[in-house]
Amino acid sequence: MPKVLEFFFDYASPYSYLASTQLEALTARTGCTLSWRPFLLGAVFKSVGKNSPPGGTFAQAKYQLKDLQDWSDLYGLPPFVLPAAFPMNGLKADRLGLVALAEGQIAAFTRAVYRRAFTQGQDVADPALLEAALAEAGLPVASCLARADAQETKDLLRKNTDEAVERGAFGAPTFFIGEDMYVGNDRLGMVERALRAGT
Amino acid sequence: MPKVLEFFFDYASPYSYLASTQLEALTARTGCTLSWRPFLLGAVFKSVGKNSPPGGTFAQAKYQLKDLQDWSDLYGLPPFVLPAAFPMNGLKADRLGLVALAEGQIAAFTRAVYRRAFTQGQDVADPALLEAALAEAGLPVASCLARADAQETKDLLRKNTDEAVERGAFGAPTFFIGEDMYVGNDRLGMVERALRAGT
Repeated sequence: MPKVLEFFFDYASPYSYLASTQLEALTARTGCTLSWRPFLLGAVFKSVGKNSPPGGTFAQAKYQLKDLQDWSDLYGLPPFVLPAAFPMNGLKADRLGLVALAEGQIAAFTRAVYRRAFTQGQDVADPALLEAALAEAGLPVASCLARADAQETKDLLRKNTDEAVERGAFGAPTFFIGEDMYVGNDRLGMVERALRAGT
Repeated sequence: MPKVLEFFFDYASPYSYLASTQLEALTARTGCTLSWRPFLLGAVFKSVGKNSPPGGTFAQAKYQLKDLQDWSDLYGLPPFVLPAAFPMNGLKADRLGLVALAEGQIAAFTRAVYRRAFTQGQDVADPALLEAALAEAGLPVASCLARADAQETKDLLRKNTDEAVERGAFGAPTFFIGEDMYVGNDRLGMVERALRAGT
């Protein structure tokens, strides 16, 4: 049985973006099955009593931007752009991610959202971005937008979020291999090591 | 000219411990010169308005301990032990580190302190630990303890700390290659990449 890697992420999270760019190659190298779990990072922060990012001090915020640029460079991605709207509200994008997942197009939708947000500086809450990303992923825009607002989708996003917090999450991205949790893009090396262990 | 890697660290910091175990091999691989810069992490936190570690929530503290164990395992170190006294006061150890540096024995002193703290669970503020670490490093215990309390040593620790904050530090370990800053044991890969760049 291939191992399952659960990827809890939010479309408003820059470090989730960075990690997402590595997952296709990671799953190919390790033979694991990837489980996409959009969740609402703002609600996770609230549940653990944290402020929204970037938070902290000016020194930390300044370094975090440099760090995001360093990772983009290391990964061979376009230069990192922090959207002017940051910190952003990922709620609509996260719900649409669940719809894209049900349609089998979450990888393409995620690439389309993140590229616009973190290499072009667009706001993930902007309907224009979301419609363009749906279209790019080959999804029917109007019906997907309607489904994103359905109670079933809202409940599923809340369920993912509550479950992540219940299992110990406090940030994004959060990875699980069974109940073995790893937090952050910078733990992907650890994730790969765990996926290879005992195989 | 070999590049200089500045290593700002505190003897009370578990992630500084982890990073310190990798520096000998890193400097050998890259040909850089290592500059040991003990500083007082508590004063850094205070200056940027942060609480002392482990801070945050129970979920974060629980994960951080697991993460420290993961890194110890990855690095092939003995199992990580969090001292019962954590968070600890590194002041005396940091001042002694400056004395050991002046005596050319900081690598040995640092290994001796960190092994006792983070693999045996001893308190870095405990005089018995400090005396044993000095002796293990081949240093004269009584005279080193006296020098650690000298105004010159106190001033130097404060200078290192103030300088680090001035240059943007907000945690430990903090690395500088010139004014290119990297924060955290988990950025050592980035540090190595920067040391190799353009050589």
